[in-house]
Amino acid sequence: MYNMTFVQKLQKACRKNNSLLCVGLDPDPAKMPAGQDTASFCKAIIKATSAYVCAYKPNLAFFEALGDNGITILKDVLKSIPEYIVTIADAKRGDIGNTATAYAKALYDDLGFDCVTLSPYMGYDSIEPFIKYHNKGVFLLCRTSNSGAADFQQLKIQDGRFLYEVVAQKASEWNTAGNIGLVVGATAPDELKIIRNMCSDMILLVPGVGAQGGDIEKTVRMAIDKNSQGVVINSSRQIIYASKEENFAQKAAMAAKALRDEINQYR
Amino acid sequence: MYNMTFVQKLQKACRKNNSLLCVGLDPDPAKMPAGQDTASFCKAIIKATSAYVCAYKPNLAFFEALGDNGITILKDVLKSIPEYIVTIADAKRGDIGNTATAYAKALYDDLGFDCVTLSPYMGYDSIEPFIKYHNKGVFLLCRTSNSGAADFQQLKIQDGRFLYEVVAQKASEWNTAGNIGLVVGATAPDELKIIRNMCSDMILLVPGVGAQGGDIEKTVRMAIDKNSQGVVINSSRQIIYASKEENFAQKAAMAAKALRDEINQYR
Repeated sequence: MYNMTFVQKLQKACRKNNSLLCVGLDPDPAKMPAGQDTASFCKAIIKATSAYVCAYKPNLAFFEALGDNGITILKDVLKSIPEYIVTIADAKRGDIGNTATAYAKALYDDLGFDCVTLSPYMGYDSIEPFIKYHNKGVFLLCRTSNSGAADFQQLKIQDGRFLYEVVAQKASEWNTAGNIGLVVGATAPDELKIIRNMCSDMILLVPGVGAQGGDIEKTVRMAIDKNSQGVVINSSRQIIYASKEENFAQKAAMAAKALRDEINQYR
Repeated sequence: MYNMTFVQKLQKACRKNNSLLCVGLDPDPAKMPAGQDTASFCKAIIKATSAYVCAYKPNLAFFEALGDNGITILKDVLKSIPEYIVTIADAKRGDIGNTATAYAKALYDDLGFDCVTLSPYMGYDSIEPFIKYHNKGVFLLCRTSNSGAADFQQLKIQDGRFLYEVVAQKASEWNTAGNIGLVVGATAPDELKIIRNMCSDMILLVPGVGAQGGDIEKTVRMAIDKNSQGVVINSSRQIIYASKEENFAQKAAMAAKALRDEINQYR
């Protein structure tokens, strides 16, 4: 069962913009067009692309790298996201009890995010303080899109399963409030299929299309649920750095629309 | 081989204060004495305890939970730590390439930490941007002190080893610059012994004594290297919340001195 509040919001945004696309906000000053600061850049991207997405995923690292004002800038950016669109804090936190509670407070209450990404390594008590917020969502790292995913996630456990499968199964068991989803990279379509089969009613957050090389047709076909939804496909660099020229926002909009339409073609 | 810059700093601080004790700064407004804000509380604790520790470990979650000014407050607190004492950012980050680079920049360059804690789940390319800073240190989560550690870290791999052992071994292989250490909880003394045997020359950061119940004698005997050092034993709540009264700083100092001395007794 999906959590109604979080999933309803996502479903509504998906329907309204006919989109499974999430735009990742990774504002890197070295890659931004001349004359833009992080806030103006992100806000221009959001304004230009918001009709084509179901979610935005600000990457907290890039805001923290701004120093003292990082959180203020992030809040300013978040305010410019239309309210009906889902916000995912790409934080990949993972810590115990009272610390996890402090992170949940920071990300959900203070910053107002709808969802966060979390690392599973520390187990259930690192996730519980987040899933207690029944109207919010958690995306647990399961099979990531990077090369290092092979180091631990692809280890074979004694019963023959891979570690990422154990993570998917545990997440499924813990999902009593219907507010846990999984992060599965588009660079691993076979694993994506296995995970979708194991977790038929969980939302998958799929990074790794575009710059990281994931194939869009395969990704969509493997990741969608029986209703041709239940998946959020993230693209960051391909959209937000579509151009370094003055018309960067317009180019980002074109890239977002094109990717949304390509995704829809395979649903 | 230890990295000379990071390890030399730690060894010097350990020698100067005859201490393997790290005080964890987890400032929770609900537990702090009346009339104290986060900055004044942390600074009073640091002033009172700095003669008895080799390191401080601010937990970033508690500063992020303060909202917009969290990083400014953290910087203010960091400035009050004597320069010869090691600072560990308890961040448990873990993300890929360009994101990890942004986190490394935030934690090492902007905040000036000596070390950070990282989660291993995403593998080598999530750690590389940090270990590239040869004069800084990384503590990789290996066998944590919480109950959820059993969910994944204690899974048996096909070759009979536990996942945490594979993490320890990989960390050892990646430690070519001598600047990787491991986080191993005091609540798991048997695992601590196994890890110390596998990684004879790596620094272990050991949380879980005190409030979490780890036995001090066992912890010290299992964790020290052949020179009776190479370990940093963290205590947070037992020290910083030793009293809620006006004399909280004095009580924290007494608790820190007592724990330092108890640790030294078993070296």
